[in-house]
Amino acid sequence: MTLPSHMGDVRVREVGLRDGLQSISQIMPTAEKIAWIDAEFEAGVREIEVCSFVPVRLMPQFADAREVVDHALGLADLTVAALVPNPRGAELALARGVHKINYVISASESHNLANVRRTRAGSLDGFRDVARLARGSTTSVVGAVSTAFGCTIEGSIAEDDVLYLVDGYLAGGASEIVLADTVGYADPTAIGALVRRVRSVTGDVPLALHLHDTRGLGLANVMAGLQAGIRDFDAALGGMGGCPHAPGASGNIVTEDLVYLLEASGFGTGIDIQALVAVRDVLIRALPDVQLLGAIAKAGLPLGLLPRR
Amino acid sequence: MTLPSHMGDVRVREVGLRDGLQSISQIMPTAEKIAWIDAEFEAGVREIEVCSFVPVRLMPQFADAREVVDHALGLADLTVAALVPNPRGAELALARGVHKINYVISASESHNLANVRRTRAGSLDGFRDVARLARGSTTSVVGAVSTAFGCTIEGSIAEDDVLYLVDGYLAGGASEIVLADTVGYADPTAIGALVRRVRSVTGDVPLALHLHDTRGLGLANVMAGLQAGIRDFDAALGGMGGCPHAPGASGNIVTEDLVYLLEASGFGTGIDIQALVAVRDVLIRALPDVQLLGAIAKAGLPLGLLPRR
Repeated sequence: MTLPSHMGDVRVREVGLRDGLQSISQIMPTAEKIAWIDAEFEAGVREIEVCSFVPVRLMPQFADAREVVDHALGLADLTVAALVPNPRGAELALARGVHKINYVISASESHNLANVRRTRAGSLDGFRDVARLARGSTTSVVGAVSTAFGCTIEGSIAEDDVLYLVDGYLAGGASEIVLADTVGYADPTAIGALVRRVRSVTGDVPLALHLHDTRGLGLANVMAGLQAGIRDFDAALGGMGGCPHAPGASGNIVTEDLVYLLEASGFGTGIDIQALVAVRDVLIRALPDVQLLGAIAKAGLPLGLLPRR
Repeated sequence: MTLPSHMGDVRVREVGLRDGLQSISQIMPTAEKIAWIDAEFEAGVREIEVCSFVPVRLMPQFADAREVVDHALGLADLTVAALVPNPRGAELALARGVHKINYVISASESHNLANVRRTRAGSLDGFRDVARLARGSTTSVVGAVSTAFGCTIEGSIAEDDVLYLVDGYLAGGASEIVLADTVGYADPTAIGALVRRVRSVTGDVPLALHLHDTRGLGLANVMAGLQAGIRDFDAALGGMGGCPHAPGASGNIVTEDLVYLLEASGFGTGIDIQALVAVRDVLIRALPDVQLLGAIAKAGLPLGLLPRR
């Protein structure tokens, strides 16, 4: 039902189980991961990146990727995504039948080399292999551009470097593009400019934003994204995903604060924000050493909740 | 000098010395207040609300209001503002020669009664008395509407209740109007709607925003204000002004994060953000028990600083 002030629907995608958990050393028990997924699903979240299909010796956190994916796939209407770094990971993800495979290349050549020891061109070759493997399956392949708004090694990143990857992804068969502000360098003006430029080439292919709140501009950047037409945003419960070397520093934008911003502003998310805030209890119990961030969990909803809805 | 991407100038007004200090129990020594003012002035801040002219028995924090004001008035080009609750406070402020007298009435009748034990109509009478006292002086009188976006007692606040005060202020001779989100209930949609409505009656009288970050939307709300034409924003260094009963809960938006948002987005503030961040050392030294908030002080500026400026 569309209310007079309804600004449209926005899809909030939880990435804490992948981007959050990969940044901590403690292994979250499988049962707790499943409890997290179930609770977010109950709260109304309909897309979750549940794991990464990486070699277990590199990231023991995701040793249970198969069990977690299999459980998530049992939840009706939940879009289940998994990160894969290479064709081997894609084979594992495809064998489970995930709905989306997320593949990441950095717009910064230096960052990509430091991260995966490949040039961007080499990583695009890998993407084409992944897309080829997925062809004919029901799994869609997503191309994410990390450091799209700047890089801690190279500083500012030219829009052309982002477009180079976007063009490569589209040519390779990506069914969705994600622009990621991996290190929290984006600002609202940069968001608006890059989103408009990228949308000029993506056509009907959906474009999403993956924003970090490292420098406090996360939700201001969401506003800029909304105004540029973005309707898909990644976020992590409790803002998980901060750098483990900078305690208290923000990582991903906070899922529950994002939902509050959207609902308060008149966008529909389908998410019960109080139920979502309650999901934090799963993390508090399972990961007592992780500092959860977020304003709405601390301050509570305004009296009368969300007046316009 | 206007760069091609220059979005215009924005005035950032420091209110930590008033709104921040009134929320803590520790008395900040006069010399430290002066060091704070001097350091912010050196960093480029050109408007500071330096104190409140309230009875000393009610707020011993401001027992040194006269000395602080006298010092601030010695800084060339600094606009020195002071809060006054009543005509007696206005007399004291006028005797010092402050540039601006800030007067506050709550849009919520219940909140105003709880806060100053007067109806809003009674408070408007007080404003007219204050404005009358200031007439003929070089001091301008500012009318601030607190709880303009909602109230913890009444919940949502009708725009008409805000307009009632704005009309009263303008009729009484206010030379500036401030809309304050005292309890952090505002969202970008509400900001845009109320600012546009109020601007339709303020004409050439400047309109400013005083925003709190209680629910994480502070800087997103700034963006909405900018888009609605606001170019004057209050903020407090380190986000001082949080509720003393909720440790860690955000109060005023953080001055240094606001400046970062503005400069990164292409607005000019005239403020050296690294010098501004360094002013936090004054607070850390003088008020060791106060928890300073803020993202940019923690994360640091992006590599290459602010690429577009």
